[in-house]
Amino acid sequence: MYDELKEKVLEENLMLPRLGLVTFTWGNVSEIDRRNGVFAIKPSGVEYDTMKKDDIVIIDLEGNKVDGKLRPSSDMLTHLELYRAFEEIGGIVHTHSPYATSWAQSERELPCYGTTHADTFYGSVPLARLLTEEEIEDGYEKNTGKVIVEVFEGKDVMAVPAVLCSHHGPFSWGKDGFDAVHNAKVLEECAKMALYTIILDNKAKEAPDRIKDKHYFRKHGKDAYYGQN
Amino acid sequence: MYDELKEKVLEENLMLPRLGLVTFTWGNVSEIDRRNGVFAIKPSGVEYDTMKKDDIVIIDLEGNKVDGKLRPSSDMLTHLELYRAFEEIGGIVHTHSPYATSWAQSERELPCYGTTHADTFYGSVPLARLLTEEEIEDGYEKNTGKVIVEVFEGKDVMAVPAVLCSHHGPFSWGKDGFDAVHNAKVLEECAKMALYTIILDNKAKEAPDRIKDKHYFRKHGKDAYYGQN
Amino acid sequence: MYDELKEKVLEENLMLPRLGLVTFTWGNVSEIDRRNGVFAIKPSGVEYDTMKKDDIVIIDLEGNKVDGKLRPSSDMLTHLELYRAFEEIGGIVHTHSPYATSWAQSERELPCYGTTHADTFYGSVPLARLLTEEEIEDGYEKNTGKVIVEVFEGKDVMAVPAVLCSHHGPFSWGKDGFDAVHNAKVLEECAKMALYTIILDNKAKEAPDRIKDKHYFRKHGKDAYYGQN
Amino acid sequence: MYDELKEKVLEENLMLPRLGLVTFTWGNVSEIDRRNGVFAIKPSGVEYDTMKKDDIVIIDLEGNKVDGKLRPSSDMLTHLELYRAFEEIGGIVHTHSPYATSWAQSERELPCYGTTHADTFYGSVPLARLLTEEEIEDGYEKNTGKVIVEVFEGKDVMAVPAVLCSHHGPFSWGKDGFDAVHNAKVLEECAKMALYTIILDNKAKEAPDRIKDKHYFRKHGKDAYYGQN
Repeated sequence: MYDELKEKVLEENLMLPRLGLVTFTWGNVSEIDRRNGVFAIKPSGVEYDTMKKDDIVIIDLEGNKVDGKLRPSSDMLTHLELYRAFEEIGGIVHTHSPYATSWAQSERELPCYGTTHADTFYGSVPLARLLTEEEIEDGYEKNTGKVIVEVFEGKDVMAVPAVLCSHHGPFSWGKDGFDAVHNAKVLEECAKMALYTIILDNKAKEAPDRIKDKHYFRKHGKDAYYGQN
Repeated sequence: MYDELKEKVLEENLMLPRLGLVTFTWGNVSEIDRRNGVFAIKPSGVEYDTMKKDDIVIIDLEGNKVDGKLRPSSDMLTHLELYRAFEEIGGIVHTHSPYATSWAQSERELPCYGTTHADTFYGSVPLARLLTEEEIEDGYEKNTGKVIVEVFEGKDVMAVPAVLCSHHGPFSWGKDGFDAVHNAKVLEECAKMALYTIILDNKAKEAPDRIKDKHYFRKHGKDAYYGQN
Repeated sequence: MYDELKEKVLEENLMLPRLGLVTFTWGNVSEIDRRNGVFAIKPSGVEYDTMKKDDIVIIDLEGNKVDGKLRPSSDMLTHLELYRAFEEIGGIVHTHSPYATSWAQSERELPCYGTTHADTFYGSVPLARLLTEEEIEDGYEKNTGKVIVEVFEGKDVMAVPAVLCSHHGPFSWGKDGFDAVHNAKVLEECAKMALYTIILDNKAKEAPDRIKDKHYFRKHGKDAYYGQN
Repeated sequence: MYDELKEKVLEENLMLPRLGLVTFTWGNVSEIDRRNGVFAIKPSGVEYDTMKKDDIVIIDLEGNKVDGKLRPSSDMLTHLELYRAFEEIGGIVHTHSPYATSWAQSERELPCYGTTHADTFYGSVPLARLLTEEEIEDGYEKNTGKVIVEVFEGKDVMAVPAVLCSHHGPFSWGKDGFDAVHNAKVLEECAKMALYTIILDNKAKEAPDRIKDKHYFRKHGKDAYYGQN
């Protein structure tokens, strides 16, 4: 019944090693089927090169497994929290990609230093705060989601489709899983270039608003003119 | 009619991922046929691994599409501006290659620290200024070309066949598209080494003029003696 | 008689180049068979791409070769010392992987900056002291093992399954050779991210204890819930 | 007549791209046949992936071409100078490998920070001085060789088989071409780790002499015990 969704989510997960975003099993992709109220997600701790379609796990919006033999990714409850909070999100990715993770480890948000960043992220990629003792002890993964939701309260979650979790690593999202993987890769490339940029100038200035606006709206919204659509 | 040019420009575009210069579709190559007054360019937002000869778009020197079904690269008007301003330019490349882009993001021109740079670029690779509010709003891509032209006014555009656009990224050119791709790769390698160089010595000195001259003229001009010609 | 062990240790050694952990022959893996009181180890100075099962050398716990035509890795006596000191160790890896080696060269222990580290190492990866003149002259490789043992005296050697030897490089271990290779790769990734992290913030704070505990015990011990077991 | 030597030197040149030491044609290997008083060297400006055995050029110790249709590497006279000055040298490599070149560009010799370096180079890899105006104008490539010879006057040229030429890049050598390529790769790895090391500690100390001696003589000289011989 969920064959097509599983196949797609398998394919999306396999993009992570191909794009150089993961070591071992350090990453996961999910995608939601809003009509049926379920999402498909990578199983926990399974190697990418042996993963098969039927290893993908189907979860409903209460967090119950509705299909699949394996245990879902340990980050499943974080994904669930984001899907519940934001109707627009169609796919979610978590990785420990090295450059984005390093910004998260140094507790710095990722500034927009140029058009590469502005083409995908409308402004800085924000930093989510550390969880408290209580939030960690009781529902760590769910609370990781809640802390991300906190960051985007009153903001357009699709305008900056990624976040850095303090001392942890990045989450990204998109209109589906492929889009979320795309954004995870863009984030990593921008995190790399931003690191080089501050080596070159420790007080590097962000791209001015006029450049950010131009590039973001060249690719997004009703006046977009990039690509073939 | 433009089959040969399209085939060549396809091949030149495919060199970008092979040389590690692009992520996703972040780059484009064009080449001009001066006799027929047209240039061929990559289509906008098309993946390199599915691109075919007939996706390449043919544009005349007024900026009109004269052949091809797809929309040309969104940077087409920048290429056009350069072809119109400089008769010597036969091919143009734009990428967001990470090291060159980082120099552009930190708003620093790329100094000549050694012979690797001097073999291809006769002096620093300059920085083009940011566009004004008006230049962005009305004709962004065309004005990006104009700002590059500004940099090379009264200079030999083929002696330093590349530029860094502030908070954006590099453009390079050459006698044809292959040469422009070659120069894009040299630029990226030099930008990488220059970054390492200033990590090792924040006040690193440029190569002295006698070294720059020797290496540049060993490869270029009438007394060149590098290679087989 | 030791065919199965040799085959396994060959496979474990071949993982080093595949995971990008070695240049030329700069690394070795061993695994112990506690029941038979022997361990299998890579031969000295043999290239990975020509290594065969029967090149693997079998050593007893007195350091005598009991099977194999070739000379064992020059680091064999270091492995022996660790197997003798710690019953829990089932496999050992030594490499000169560049990031971990650089921390060792700068004589800094590797701090835990985030969950990527905490998932495998419970706290900093320690630095083993330099050997004295006497320790180097008489039994260098054996004394390298002794200095590592010194670091873990009174500590749980499996909670932080790696060490950095001053001006030398890393050793890692695990419940078998595969686990030790896994830990060598995690160490290298963490050493890379930690380098980037201190570029971003020279005084970066370590992950707080509550995060370290959560991530370590999510994967290890009786309450672990990561993976399929 | 020189078929075997040409075949070997072709193979040695092809190792450069395989080991990640060259971009385009930025490198060359030669090897000498002392009995016949000739050396074989890469042709100038020929791509590695189309190079064939018969493109390799044979030069005598007066610098005359004695076999081959193509022009030799523009660095041929530098190789010649080294072969003439040092009887022990059997093969020579020049590259613009990025890390070693960056040390050369910052005009710093490469210190020995650890055993990876000490295993191959007995002490710092020295920096050769810049050429004077006259040395550049009249016999640039030959004088590049002379300046390297200057550095090793009264020293054992095989104990530190590499040099960094100011604002240019590295040369390395060995008992034959393969050994010289090996040393070029070790140099690049050590230059990379040394860069990381000084990022971690700007005043990092060199490995103490007792470590340098131990590791160098473990692999070289009559008491060597590394490897199978």
